[in-house]
Amino acid sequence: MNFQSYFPIWSKLTVPQQTRILTGLTERSVQKGALLHNGSADCTGLLLIRSGQLRAYILSDEGREITVYRLFDRDLCLFSASCMLRSVQFDITIEAEKDTELWIIPTELYQQLMEESAPVANYTNEIMAARFSEVMWLMEQILWKSLDKRVAAFLLEESAIEGGSLLKLTHETIANHLGTHREVITRMLRYFQGEGMVRLARGSVELLDRKSLELLRDA
Amino acid sequence: MNFQSYFPIWSKLTVPQQTRILTGLTERSVQKGALLHNGSADCTGLLLIRSGQLRAYILSDEGREITVYRLFDRDLCLFSASCMLRSVQFDITIEAEKDTELWIIPTELYQQLMEESAPVANYTNEIMAARFSEVMWLMEQILWKSLDKRVAAFLLEESAIEGGSLLKLTHETIANHLGTHREVITRMLRYFQGEGMVRLARGSVELLDRKSLELLRDA
Repeated sequence: MNFQSYFPIWSKLTVPQQTRILTGLTERSVQKGALLHNGSADCTGLLLIRSGQLRAYILSDEGREITVYRLFDRDLCLFSASCMLRSVQFDITIEAEKDTELWIIPTELYQQLMEESAPVANYTNEIMAARFSEVMWLMEQILWKSLDKRVAAFLLEESAIEGGSLLKLTHETIANHLGTHREVITRMLRYFQGEGMVRLARGSVELLDRKSLELLRDA
Repeated sequence: MNFQSYFPIWSKLTVPQQTRILTGLTERSVQKGALLHNGSADCTGLLLIRSGQLRAYILSDEGREITVYRLFDRDLCLFSASCMLRSVQFDITIEAEKDTELWIIPTELYQQLMEESAPVANYTNEIMAARFSEVMWLMEQILWKSLDKRVAAFLLEESAIEGGSLLKLTHETIANHLGTHREVITRMLRYFQGEGMVRLARGSVELLDRKSLELLRDA
């Protein structure tokens, strides 16, 4: 599988545009934990994920984190090239959550394509709208959902991503995904454990009663 | 002043495109309080504000509100035509906060222009990125800022919009802007009043000590 089959609007580009993109492209492998983009400090370029998993998060002045969205195979990461959009005025950090293979499309190259090609501009629009929807969903969660539901939803989502019930996660990591403090997560997980929903061990959470977690999430 | 001078990329449209837009356009006057768009229930079209003020907000299942952003003269409201973007999966309600004069661009018409014209698609992109930035700002406020700072910031913003210190606002209205309960706002405003920062009366809040409110906001 090559770039062409991963880039959904490939066939809508002209042949010279296709050539420019293939010439400008670089391939990269990054390890789990690698920082790919750091707020407004850099303008890395657009990242197209071949395989792996990225996490986009924001940081408070005090160093607290919250995961804004995640990117998986075939996803295009736009905000690592946010300098190309004048109106983007927030800083997102992007790190690899798993070992990841990706293509980098240079910002200026993509920007030129966007300016000359309506399909590229509209594709970019759809991606932004999708991320926007994820952020709105997250905001609704933060505003109207209690933390127990959010922790239950997070554990079930993790389990779906990992394809198993034993999750290698520290309380700190969960707190950083959900924008809260470690102590708060520890208390919540102990409550879940008391209810028989999970089993806690050093650096892991095992889901024991998926049904109850789902009931809690959907309540 | 006519539509042409309010639509920033007018000169980037072809003459036939300009004709189509002028033919499809409707003008409307709405009164303060009018509901212009109601979540996914309708696809009103794009709204270009000639004069006035709109508020975009989301609603919880229990009927709680939070203001997501506001639109002023010359702003284009995209999400009243969110049906044109497949990836938009959230419901925004839009109401007139003041008597408002606006133009409505039919959704299908705009969508066609977007598909054929890179400038229109890129302009749409910039607007979405600007709204995205406002939402990210709001999320950071909700996550990391305490409510006293948010109330102070809201009062100062209102005062800047209205151009005066006497704000005609109920506690319920402030709560609906900030996504919280009336009782919480009442308590906070009484605290502000005790500190000499505001004077409360039925249906109004008067800013007495702008400096202290600014210090609180920026702390």
